[in-house]
Amino acid sequence: MKKRVVILGSTGSVGRSALQVIASHPERFQVVGLAASRSHELLQRQCREFSPRVVALAEPQAARRLRRSLDIPVLEGPEGVQAVASLEEAELVVSAIVGSAGLMPTLAAIRAGKDIALANKEALVMAGPLVLAEAMSRGVRLLPVDSEHSALMQCLEGRPASQVRTLVLTASGGPFMGMSAEELREVSPQEALRHPRWRMGRKITIDSATLMNKGLEVIEAHYLFGIPAERIKVLVHPQSIVHSMVELVDGSVLALLSVPDMRGPVAYALSWPERLPGVLRPLGVEDLQSLTFHAPDEDNFPCLRCAYEALRAGGTMPAVLNAANEVAVRAFLREEISFTRIAEVIREVMAEHSPTEPQDIQDVLRASAWAQQRAQALVATLRGGVG
Amino acid sequence: MKKRVVILGSTGSVGRSALQVIASHPERFQVVGLAASRSHELLQRQCREFSPRVVALAEPQAARRLRRSLDIPVLEGPEGVQAVASLEEAELVVSAIVGSAGLMPTLAAIRAGKDIALANKEALVMAGPLVLAEAMSRGVRLLPVDSEHSALMQCLEGRPASQVRTLVLTASGGPFMGMSAEELREVSPQEALRHPRWRMGRKITIDSATLMNKGLEVIEAHYLFGIPAERIKVLVHPQSIVHSMVELVDGSVLALLSVPDMRGPVAYALSWPERLPGVLRPLGVEDLQSLTFHAPDEDNFPCLRCAYEALRAGGTMPAVLNAANEVAVRAFLREEISFTRIAEVIREVMAEHSPTEPQDIQDVLRASAWAQQRAQALVATLRGGVG
Repeated sequence: MKKRVVILGSTGSVGRSALQVIASHPERFQVVGLAASRSHELLQRQCREFSPRVVALAEPQAARRLRRSLDIPVLEGPEGVQAVASLEEAELVVSAIVGSAGLMPTLAAIRAGKDIALANKEALVMAGPLVLAEAMSRGVRLLPVDSEHSALMQCLEGRPASQVRTLVLTASGGPFMGMSAEELREVSPQEALRHPRWRMGRKITIDSATLMNKGLEVIEAHYLFGIPAERIKVLVHPQSIVHSMVELVDGSVLALLSVPDMRGPVAYALSWPERLPGVLRPLGVEDLQSLTFHAPDEDNFPCLRCAYEALRAGGTMPAVLNAANEVAVRAFLREEISFTRIAEVIREVMAEHSPTEPQDIQDVLRASAWAQQRAQALVATLRGGVG
Repeated sequence: MKKRVVILGSTGSVGRSALQVIASHPERFQVVGLAASRSHELLQRQCREFSPRVVALAEPQAARRLRRSLDIPVLEGPEGVQAVASLEEAELVVSAIVGSAGLMPTLAAIRAGKDIALANKEALVMAGPLVLAEAMSRGVRLLPVDSEHSALMQCLEGRPASQVRTLVLTASGGPFMGMSAEELREVSPQEALRHPRWRMGRKITIDSATLMNKGLEVIEAHYLFGIPAERIKVLVHPQSIVHSMVELVDGSVLALLSVPDMRGPVAYALSWPERLPGVLRPLGVEDLQSLTFHAPDEDNFPCLRCAYEALRAGGTMPAVLNAANEVAVRAFLREEISFTRIAEVIREVMAEHSPTEPQDIQDVLRASAWAQQRAQALVATLRGGVG
């Protein structure tokens, strides 16, 4: 019996990895729905190869273009994406839309009772307690697709929570590790986009360079595994072979290693609780010649500290952190502000926010929208100044 | 309810570690029996601290000395040790007698239905299939105490055998890694006894320097985990932080890390399936600065290859390997033969042996006795020559 899969964000980095895994195992999976933002040409090719029953594009204009060349339903707009997310015949939804745009489709899939292969970080970062409550009440399983959280899940499997002391997320450190504050002020978007280990989308690559990506992962790990902030640590590991570690109460540490290749965690989330053979190139002794670890530089990469603060503050604060970061990263990519201003924008917006406990997703979206506006206003001010 | 424990080899390195763990958790464990070879003074002190009901010393003279200062039964000889091993009230027997002398007491404990915390390698190396059959028929659990096998067990826990591709045993490499054949010919027992990472007994420290220890561990891992020789690998890892790894079918690798401290695996075998808090100093970032791995030098350390050959030959061959090694190591420690002759003696004895499938433990003991005699004869010849 094939597992019936929907992929949200099928034209992005994780979505394409998921389709690669599925293409290698046609006996196990059937793609029933695909959704993307605007890449109608790639989505068209994916439809030819995987024959979904229905697709959606968030951008209406792109959807209209796609309709001309496909004879299956092409839905459009956020409602279209959410309709694909809650497709009746789907069993598993790969949630791989980047950023806060992924929140509502992920929630729609959970509310429809689908298990989630979760690559989108923002659903849990923005609305962790609400998302978990929905998942719990519907018996929905959240299977992490991030290499770090997949590693943590694999290390934790079969172990009682009482045996766990700390989670250790590893970070490649991005392209700027070791740089001084002065040097960081000068780095360009082009330099920031040259990630040494992972090929990912633009937003997440910048987040990786600021360490905000790791900060969002700390928040996500907190919600996924129920471990408080003070028992989640980050270590920089430039080789990206050890994907994360779990320290047990006796002082033993379990680690998950592999070559850095998204198909590993994607395949495990797709096939869980089984494991597909031969997904990754086996680790060779050449990959293990020297594995190094060091503490992150939280002074020069303050985004990580902001994320811990947002998690400790709780309520709407992580959503505010995330929204401010999205705006600041976009401004940096447009060369409107400098690299080091990203953290300053976030810090300033957080300082102005008094978090409250959101009662529903609208409270989260309101806090997020407020933070976006405040961040945009700050960016506008900064554009006038030094940049 | 305290777990009632017997420790065979209580005055050795592993036995003392076990008693340290027990002393830190008096609410969990009760020592009901202790056995050792000849260290009557240390055993006496252990009796004062842990109040066992009965003890044994393999050497009758040492037993007689101990009797004068203790008012509990002091058994003697191999029979005495086996009687303690099968003590009625014991639930768990720590089998930590070094070498082939550990085989019969371990077997006695298994036949008496005790779970075994297994530090003695030779029981499985010499008589793996027979020992496993006895354990199986009595529902006895074999909990490995070697850091490598404990690590493998912890990585394998909760995972179906079908997901496992290879076991990777790590080796510190001992004090002589990187030396040439010429240099190895000149090394002294004193140099060989200076192990860079682990403090262990003399025999096992020499085995660690020749890599025979790793070879015996490969054989042991084969029997403990049911993985064939060609799927068990060895990697040299001088820092001794990663204690072993399990490669899964998808290319992911699970590893167990900790500071190198025998109390970790000893405590886990004692408390299994629970985990005692705070047994080990937590791993710090300073322990993880650089972890290196490389393939073992099987040309200059041929004992490892001998062990694989013995495992593949099967039957009585591993017992012959082990016996020849014991004799050769003893001769090296007495400065009767050089370091590089150890492997030569083993290889020669193995070449003369046609393995058969042992029907009972007597067949194993006969093969072992034959190999001892042949190895002794070879040592005698070599003593006459270059040494």
